[in-house]
Amino acid sequence: MARNDLKILGAWPSPYVMRTRIALNIKSLAYDFLEEQFGTKSELLLKSNPIYKKIPVLIHDGKPICESLIIVQYIDENWTNFGHSILPSHPYDRAIARFWASYIDDKWFPALRGVAATQEENAKKAATETVIEGLVLLEDVFKNCSKGKKFFGGDKIGYLDIALGCFLGWLKVNEKLNNVNLLDESKTPGLYKWAEDFCGDSVVKDVMPETDKLAQAAKVIWAKIRAQASS
Amino acid sequence: MARNDLKILGAWPSPYVMRTRIALNIKSLAYDFLEEQFGTKSELLLKSNPIYKKIPVLIHDGKPICESLIIVQYIDENWTNFGHSILPSHPYDRAIARFWASYIDDKWFPALRGVAATQEENAKKAATETVIEGLVLLEDVFKNCSKGKKFFGGDKIGYLDIALGCFLGWLKVNEKLNNVNLLDESKTPGLYKWAEDFCGDSVVKDVMPETDKLAQAAKVIWAKIRAQASS
Repeated sequence: MARNDLKILGAWPSPYVMRTRIALNIKSLAYDFLEEQFGTKSELLLKSNPIYKKIPVLIHDGKPICESLIIVQYIDENWTNFGHSILPSHPYDRAIARFWASYIDDKWFPALRGVAATQEENAKKAATETVIEGLVLLEDVFKNCSKGKKFFGGDKIGYLDIALGCFLGWLKVNEKLNNVNLLDESKTPGLYKWAEDFCGDSVVKDVMPETDKLAQAAKVIWAKIRAQASS
Repeated sequence: MARNDLKILGAWPSPYVMRTRIALNIKSLAYDFLEEQFGTKSELLLKSNPIYKKIPVLIHDGKPICESLIIVQYIDENWTNFGHSILPSHPYDRAIARFWASYIDDKWFPALRGVAATQEENAKKAATETVIEGLVLLEDVFKNCSKGKKFFGGDKIGYLDIALGCFLGWLKVNEKLNNVNLLDESKTPGLYKWAEDFCGDSVVKDVMPETDKLAQAAKVIWAKIRAQASS
């Protein structure tokens, strides 16, 4: 079998890039990781994603695919016989997984970003509460989807695990740098244990950044977000 | 075969609701249409979509599915042997269709909404230009996807046809009430012809509102949008 020509345009701290790398790991697909430098955009990136100019981009045999959740679905659908299925097998379960993945991107992560983006105490407190409320909601989703197993996807890491799990590094950085407790074992025991299982899984371990290293990157990135917010 | 118990919570002017009805028509599935009244939310809606409290919701055998594009994918995946496939068959083509459907929802339709939402001349002009630029971009996508056939999906109406086509009624209302030309035959000849074919198709005809009737509804809805924008 010919080796697939797979490239990821990405950056190691990006949670969205991590999604695509976990999906490729699940399918045991080798790829070249082309690191974009923070604050600049390569010509290949601009050419491959002219609409959003954002990472990640997966380039498969010269053809670019953009948007992390679309890339994860592409990897699952194009290599059905490799590794395990990422999307649930039943259409209803797939719809539920897609719904909550969208919720995480559209509602929950913006709140987590809000914790980092503001230094104003009341706004930070409100964003922190929204993040925790979201986790309590997702605790219920976890119970319904996992049915007593380790992951949202059952025995193995699936679509919703990838969608939420890629933010765990940033959650820990937020906890560390802002001195808050977000993923609380007493409030969300299922997710607390899930997070440990997710981070320790063989398809995740080598792409999940160390919290200290991510915290250093976070300081640079947050300074930029705060500067943008106040300009 | 037992009749499926299918309900759509919706409202006739909603482009997102139209998507789900077209998908059900493609699969020749009968359903009950439970009309939500503008400005109110039924208890069934609040119970079925507690996160967003928005239409459409498809209720299949008592189980709710939310978000129009997720519903369309669910219908396609759950009734694979009914009607024709809505999503393209090749994973790469599916990724491209999902990408542009997201673009339409996240970038293009907000601009169309901007044409309606503002009465300030310069802002209206800028929004109008963005809508037209988006259509020029989508003209290229149409050429690439349709490969000389009638629809983005080829010979039959597919995912991207549904994603964009559901906004055609609102595009016409915008043209009529704002006295602007958005879908211009000279600038986007492919899309101009596509729009005629789409609106005339048997799976679309009975759910595409008449422009005059939609224009009446638009006046009420836009007044509300403008009031919200200025409050």
